[in-house]
Amino acid sequence: MRLQLALDLVTLDGARRLLDTLGDAVDIVEVGTPWIMQEGMRPVTALKQAYPHLQVLADLKIMDAGEHEARIGFDAGADIVTVLGAAGDRTVGGVVAAARRAKGEVMADLIAVPDVRRRAAEIDALGVDYVCVHTAFDEQQTGKDPLAELRLAREGCSRARAAVAGGVKLATLPAIAELQPAIVVVGGAITGAPDPAAVAREMQRLMR
Amino acid sequence: MRLQLALDLVTLDGARRLLDTLGDAVDIVEVGTPWIMQEGMRPVTALKQAYPHLQVLADLKIMDAGEHEARIGFDAGADIVTVLGAAGDRTVGGVVAAARRAKGEVMADLIAVPDVRRRAAEIDALGVDYVCVHTAFDEQQTGKDPLAELRLAREGCSRARAAVAGGVKLATLPAIAELQPAIVVVGGAITGAPDPAAVAREMQRLMR
Repeated sequence: MRLQLALDLVTLDGARRLLDTLGDAVDIVEVGTPWIMQEGMRPVTALKQAYPHLQVLADLKIMDAGEHEARIGFDAGADIVTVLGAAGDRTVGGVVAAARRAKGEVMADLIAVPDVRRRAAEIDALGVDYVCVHTAFDEQQTGKDPLAELRLAREGCSRARAAVAGGVKLATLPAIAELQPAIVVVGGAITGAPDPAAVAREMQRLMR
Repeated sequence: MRLQLALDLVTLDGARRLLDTLGDAVDIVEVGTPWIMQEGMRPVTALKQAYPHLQVLADLKIMDAGEHEARIGFDAGADIVTVLGAAGDRTVGGVVAAARRAKGEVMADLIAVPDVRRRAAEIDALGVDYVCVHTAFDEQQTGKDPLAELRLAREGCSRARAAVAGGVKLATLPAIAELQPAIVVVGGAITGAPDPAAVAREMQRLMR
């Protein structure tokens, strides 16, 4: 299991300070969608240059023009880009094609997908590397159960590995870790902690 | 009917040169999703400052954190932001709430929505200003019929006005104009024309 740190609402300097304190306690650094909306690919390029040992994920949430938009991410230095599971199959396929050429990886985000198991199976067949169950920020107060969705997504996939995102914190991590997703995405539980490095290290311990 | 020019694959200088030649032949200038992915909100702010008489649409294709992400667009100077019809109702509602506060508008993009009529009705009830039927770039070779979708979307809406996007060109505009959408979105048919201003003016004539 690998720990992905989702970064938003930060400056590049703030992100660097945080990543310097975290050291090797995170495996993947995510430039979140709102940050991309504000700054484009600049943070992706800057973080990959500053932290070449980390994988950088650009949370592009691609919905159309899959090949072209994925290339924007990979050209900027991203190791992984995201496509929406709600996108059409050709779009997902275009993102996968761009990833193969760039020797990068694709995470499909199942946010707002009604039938997680079926769509996970379809997306798995299209060749994505990770299928991410994602309790939307806008849904985190509604009692949606990411564990149930994680199980459904894994059932649907024969090749793609699972990832889980959306409000993951220390208290909820042990139950998630039992299901052995390949990637656990954490944002505020680390970035908003008084001691982010301590939280990240404890998370790594729980994921071992 | 208003003409929205979708801009992608351009530099800010290129966009300015184009808009200067177009004069008042376009009503809304769209900063397209790939351009936002590359440059963030810079083109939105720059174009609004340079062309205050034009409405600027930021094609954010919001899928989560509706209120927060919409605010990024409005704070940067956008008059209209887009949310995906595939997003959850809370996300759409958050975008609408941010628009009301910013005195901006919301266009919901029905790209990849399976039941256009039903979703248009649901989104209409959530208070969006425009519902856009959008033949995905990745689907434009598959023979999907934007006119049929435009009719369905209009049937679903009691308040929101219709917009149409995706490969619109001079040859297809008359049939679209007959259905009187509030906004017609055109990209390559203008930006790739030998004489973009002539095409835009002819489109305006067909839409009268």
